[in-house]
Amino acid sequence: MSAPGKHCPIGVFDSGVGGLTVVRALMERLPLESIVYFGDTARVPYGVKSVATIEQYSAQIVDLLRRRGVKMLIVACNTMAAVALSTVRARAAGLPAIDVIEAGARAAIAGARRGRIGVIGTPTTINSNAYARRIHALDSGARVYSQACPLFVPLVEEGWLDHPVTRLTAQEYLRPVLAENVDSLVLGCTHYPLLKPLLRDVVGEGVRLIDSALTTAELAAANLQETGLAATGEEPVSYRYIVTDVPLRFQTIGERFLGRSLGEVERVDW
Amino acid sequence: MSAPGKHCPIGVFDSGVGGLTVVRALMERLPLESIVYFGDTARVPYGVKSVATIEQYSAQIVDLLRRRGVKMLIVACNTMAAVALSTVRARAAGLPAIDVIEAGARAAIAGARRGRIGVIGTPTTINSNAYARRIHALDSGARVYSQACPLFVPLVEEGWLDHPVTRLTAQEYLRPVLAENVDSLVLGCTHYPLLKPLLRDVVGEGVRLIDSALTTAELAAANLQETGLAATGEEPVSYRYIVTDVPLRFQTIGERFLGRSLGEVERVDW
Repeated sequence: MSAPGKHCPIGVFDSGVGGLTVVRALMERLPLESIVYFGDTARVPYGVKSVATIEQYSAQIVDLLRRRGVKMLIVACNTMAAVALSTVRARAAGLPAIDVIEAGARAAIAGARRGRIGVIGTPTTINSNAYARRIHALDSGARVYSQACPLFVPLVEEGWLDHPVTRLTAQEYLRPVLAENVDSLVLGCTHYPLLKPLLRDVVGEGVRLIDSALTTAELAAANLQETGLAATGEEPVSYRYIVTDVPLRFQTIGERFLGRSLGEVERVDW
Repeated sequence: MSAPGKHCPIGVFDSGVGGLTVVRALMERLPLESIVYFGDTARVPYGVKSVATIEQYSAQIVDLLRRRGVKMLIVACNTMAAVALSTVRARAAGLPAIDVIEAGARAAIAGARRGRIGVIGTPTTINSNAYARRIHALDSGARVYSQACPLFVPLVEEGWLDHPVTRLTAQEYLRPVLAENVDSLVLGCTHYPLLKPLLRDVVGEGVRLIDSALTTAELAAANLQETGLAATGEEPVSYRYIVTDVPLRFQTIGERFLGRSLGEVERVDW
């Protein structure tokens, strides 16, 4: 394959719909860029699968996106970022590859006043310890307090973004993290940006919320500048969505994540 | 294969751990029976998969249980019962096969005073309309009011069985069903029996709760009597658990469903 140019799309991938929050942030931060999104909706969730299986799926997705001519890869799935990043890098064959965990860890370090960082995510992400490892690689003195929040994904998918049930759940999950007097809280799951207004209320003004969709878009913007691959606006912008299954309520949930109409969704049969 | 005798185990299967509530009910109702449980924990949830895939998985599970010499099959998975029962029956090659939906529908009809029946379940079960179809096949005059409760499974798996969040969620989900003045409520998901004390409070004494784990155990007992296959107590009772993956917190969650220690769990690699 010849090297992709500035006009080529960015490839963003996730195990399901959650990565659409990253797409939304990219659309806002980089309005000249075209995007191909891949969501492995038939095989979601990845969190319960073995590392070997996740590596195999990740390689398969990278191959598909390379065939679609992307110029950059964005791993918008915390599970793949935690356990399969080296597979993605190897398979990317020189394409720049960035991921939500690296973006979140960098942003957490950059703004931590007292170096006390809270991280919330799914049980798989938290148990992988990937955020703590990446944060410590950047700043060995940082203190990291992690909390799994297993109900947040189903609450977001139910659409209860500002609901008393979600508020009560957040208060309960965040109590131990807030007791540690953290100055930043990393939203370590692509579903969580939708809970930001509610989480802002629960944590109070003293805690900085780190939205890994926004930080990933920032990291992508910086990378495109460095590599000279940023789009110039001479070509029309296009957005494509590829999924492996179109499950119940996919359109509704997807559009809630994306904040706009999904347009045409292509299904590949794996 | 020769026909299995009275001393052979009952085969119970589900896409994950939920079917252990049926195993628990069987242990209590039929203490002389041995049981082989199969949970397809590597491929859970089935609800988002295509009918063809669910049929294929169901056939594979029935074949495994037949090789383990079971005398009866119990489909303890609402999704398989809703879409793959004919596959299970065909593959059972003459073994009796009963399922949670049939058991729940029969019990609902048997005790409905005014013929107004509420059904709660996962979105997949409710959208399949399988309970309403089976209830109407038994009593075409019954009125069925269905409600999907997507947060109940994650709440049970979180262990919040008697928690203010769960109570508030149940009040919200059940409001429209209770407004229809139902006399029975079918718990159409194997996770829901764990919420029975809380649901009892929320629905009040006037509504009969139909626990499909208990009704399935009753149907199994009746079937063993009819077919002359009931165990006689001359052989030691054994319980085996087979899964396709041992996910995070499997032991903890499984024992909560089973109400006792799981003992040895065998893993098969598919």
